[in-house]
Amino acid sequence: MSAAPPGPDDFRAAGHELVEWVARYMEDVERFPVQSPVAPGWVRAQLPPHAPEQPEPWDAIVADLDRVVLPAVTHWQSPMFFGYFPANASGPSILGDLVSSGLGVQGMLWATGPACTEIETHVLDWLVELLGLPEHFRGHGVIQDSASSANLCAVLAARDRRTATVALDRLRAYTSTQAHSSIEKAIRVAGLRRDQLRTIDVDDTYALRADALRDAVERDVAGGLVPFLAVATAGTTSSLAFDPVDAIADVCDAHDMWLHVDAALAGAAAIAPELRALVNGGIDRVDSWCFDPHKWLLTNFDCDVLYLADPSALVDSLSVVPEYLRNQASESGAVIDYRDWQVPLGRRFRALKLWFVLRRYGAEGLREHIRRDVRAARWLAARVDGDDRFARLAPADLSLVCFAHRDGDDATERLHRRINESGRALVTHTRLGDRYAIRVAVGATSTEQHHVEALWHLVDELA
Amino acid sequence: MSAAPPGPDDFRAAGHELVEWVARYMEDVERFPVQSPVAPGWVRAQLPPHAPEQPEPWDAIVADLDRVVLPAVTHWQSPMFFGYFPANASGPSILGDLVSSGLGVQGMLWATGPACTEIETHVLDWLVELLGLPEHFRGHGVIQDSASSANLCAVLAARDRRTATVALDRLRAYTSTQAHSSIEKAIRVAGLRRDQLRTIDVDDTYALRADALRDAVERDVAGGLVPFLAVATAGTTSSLAFDPVDAIADVCDAHDMWLHVDAALAGAAAIAPELRALVNGGIDRVDSWCFDPHKWLLTNFDCDVLYLADPSALVDSLSVVPEYLRNQASESGAVIDYRDWQVPLGRRFRALKLWFVLRRYGAEGLREHIRRDVRAARWLAARVDGDDRFARLAPADLSLVCFAHRDGDDATERLHRRINESGRALVTHTRLGDRYAIRVAVGATSTEQHHVEALWHLVDELA
Repeated sequence: MSAAPPGPDDFRAAGHELVEWVARYMEDVERFPVQSPVAPGWVRAQLPPHAPEQPEPWDAIVADLDRVVLPAVTHWQSPMFFGYFPANASGPSILGDLVSSGLGVQGMLWATGPACTEIETHVLDWLVELLGLPEHFRGHGVIQDSASSANLCAVLAARDRRTATVALDRLRAYTSTQAHSSIEKAIRVAGLRRDQLRTIDVDDTYALRADALRDAVERDVAGGLVPFLAVATAGTTSSLAFDPVDAIADVCDAHDMWLHVDAALAGAAAIAPELRALVNGGIDRVDSWCFDPHKWLLTNFDCDVLYLADPSALVDSLSVVPEYLRNQASESGAVIDYRDWQVPLGRRFRALKLWFVLRRYGAEGLREHIRRDVRAARWLAARVDGDDRFARLAPADLSLVCFAHRDGDDATERLHRRINESGRALVTHTRLGDRYAIRVAVGATSTEQHHVEALWHLVDELA
Repeated sequence: MSAAPPGPDDFRAAGHELVEWVARYMEDVERFPVQSPVAPGWVRAQLPPHAPEQPEPWDAIVADLDRVVLPAVTHWQSPMFFGYFPANASGPSILGDLVSSGLGVQGMLWATGPACTEIETHVLDWLVELLGLPEHFRGHGVIQDSASSANLCAVLAARDRRTATVALDRLRAYTSTQAHSSIEKAIRVAGLRRDQLRTIDVDDTYALRADALRDAVERDVAGGLVPFLAVATAGTTSSLAFDPVDAIADVCDAHDMWLHVDAALAGAAAIAPELRALVNGGIDRVDSWCFDPHKWLLTNFDCDVLYLADPSALVDSLSVVPEYLRNQASESGAVIDYRDWQVPLGRRFRALKLWFVLRRYGAEGLREHIRRDVRAARWLAARVDGDDRFARLAPADLSLVCFAHRDGDDATERLHRRINESGRALVTHTRLGDRYAIRVAVGATSTEQHHVEALWHLVDELA
């Protein structure tokens, strides 16, 4: 067998076969147990101990997708997947990724990929309009791999705006007890200690209490410390709570603090004008704001969008220009080099998938996706509310329903386990207050009303 | 027109069309000017100011790939691309990415994607054997998006191993003047000041001088500072210089410093046993080591592989476990949760593309890719050496040839510009010592001997 590299014809043949494979997966995904039933070690036990010396035929590779991979996949794309967050793969997005992989372009500099850079800026400007974001976000958007990375960028920009004059260990950041774990992780990555992040109490809707924030900030200032950052969440992970951004901005203004908003899941909902009051409150006053099209805007992972009121602080933090990256376009000042807007140097042409999604669905198609999910989640919340066995534990204004069994944590946990072990649906959990809560996150690409109804029947049957 | 979401049949039809589009791109890429000739702003001027309200047909989208994207692409996949580093897209890799996008799996936890986690660990164990890496790297590999991120992980693990007992601002890190810019960026991201990174002199092969490192470390220790990290480079960006890892390890051992090796480009060459002495020197003694399959192992961006002698320091740095991510498998201790081995939480099923590449090429196919490139680069180095107009500025042991015009920097810079403006090839530059150097990085997926010969004829013609 020749060791000659597989060329375009090999790609063509296998490519058509794998497009069919993926299409069949989309059609069949509902039939698999949503949570993979395999035990730790099962996958590795199926694989040979050594890499092959000689090329293997595609048939063997594709056969292993069915034999080894599918049984060991937790099916995030199942319409019965209600865990964690919806992970919105879609045909147009998958194909945008295909073209990105095929072009194999590096977008670290404008010069290394003009289309990669300019389509990104342009499509993110489209989103400014579609989501009702502030005009000063135009030209100031950048795609990150995830909200974790966007949150880290905000921490770094906010930190370095202060460290010229303030010692690192005097800085203090603030977020709610409900903020995503990536905030704490970003703080630690950035060289701050865990205790330099103050976690502020929430009210009974799990939204940050602005009065508690003000007290904490003032206490720290009085103690000679320097508040430099508040991270608000528009749609928390546990319960989709919305922090009062406007009131938080008042505190930030008074103390020259950076205000970042993590709208990872909920941000996409702003595409529906009737949901903007909930999602975008106070957004005119924030320094940075991010959301994940890969969570709820029909774009597959990885695609987070970060906007900055003024990107210069971030660029100041992250710009390092070695000789081998110098070029005329960069030095002209007429272009964006996105390398300076992210932690890694290299970058994929991720804007392609967002461009494909916006064009193939159109804004109306995306709005319908959001509205369908919100309708279905509210329907489910009403069923929970009308059933004596259950207590809803948080507002369900958008797409997440959190509830518990009234018989207590053991009953809720047992119900949770039974749902997942049935293989017919997947839900995950959190703690709200002191209670174990089942989280139902509606919004997978293929989830329709009848799937949510099927989940409810399952809950009813297993409770 | 219906706003119903495009389903499997829409994906199928467009998928087949785009597989053909990518295959044609592979066939035609040589015909495009390698460096995009468009001016800043050209791409955006081709695009409508607003996103479409209604879905657009695929025809319109695909037409724009030809009309807007291709003219504005710098063709990293051209066989005449010799700039920066080779960006190794290949059919098997692109299709691994396609399946990854199609499955839409999250690999943050074992439980959220058992196949995603275990195939990754397994394939990285295959690579331990194929690259002749230390046995203690088995089970200790993790895929990152890029060497930037792998380098950052090493900085964080090394930092936090010390900050329990040492104040952050007493820490000092060491690397050579030739180290990649991502080292400085990682240091700054991690909350250290630029001057906490010492850049050590190099010898006349541009390799770090171990004696200068020892002096610098001892000077800092005498001054009450705490050396915590040395970053060696196996194949520098500017000239593919190899730092003396063994001698650096002596210094690190004496001062309990973490030793990280950045082998981003050159690491792949270890698949050829005859190149291992050059590439893997001292590797048994390092704490962490990374290389980029997306640079020279026929895997498209993004795919960096990081190995750790002991991953626990990294996990200690990066582990944050909120309630909503707790699960039975994690708590059993029987699985890897790769979320704790990287900065972001979310992760794609990147191992698929590496698995496809290793199987479809076989180890022999990958060795042949490396050997062909090394032969071609050495051929070019011999041409340069035999021509009175040029001076080679660094060793060309592997796949990179750096040279200058003997008439001085202006002549070299003019030659560089003429090559790129011809559209027939792309090279980039660096500075070596005080001279402007043209860098020729051989190794694009489709580059063959005759392409390097064509480059040489072009150089000869334009010099």
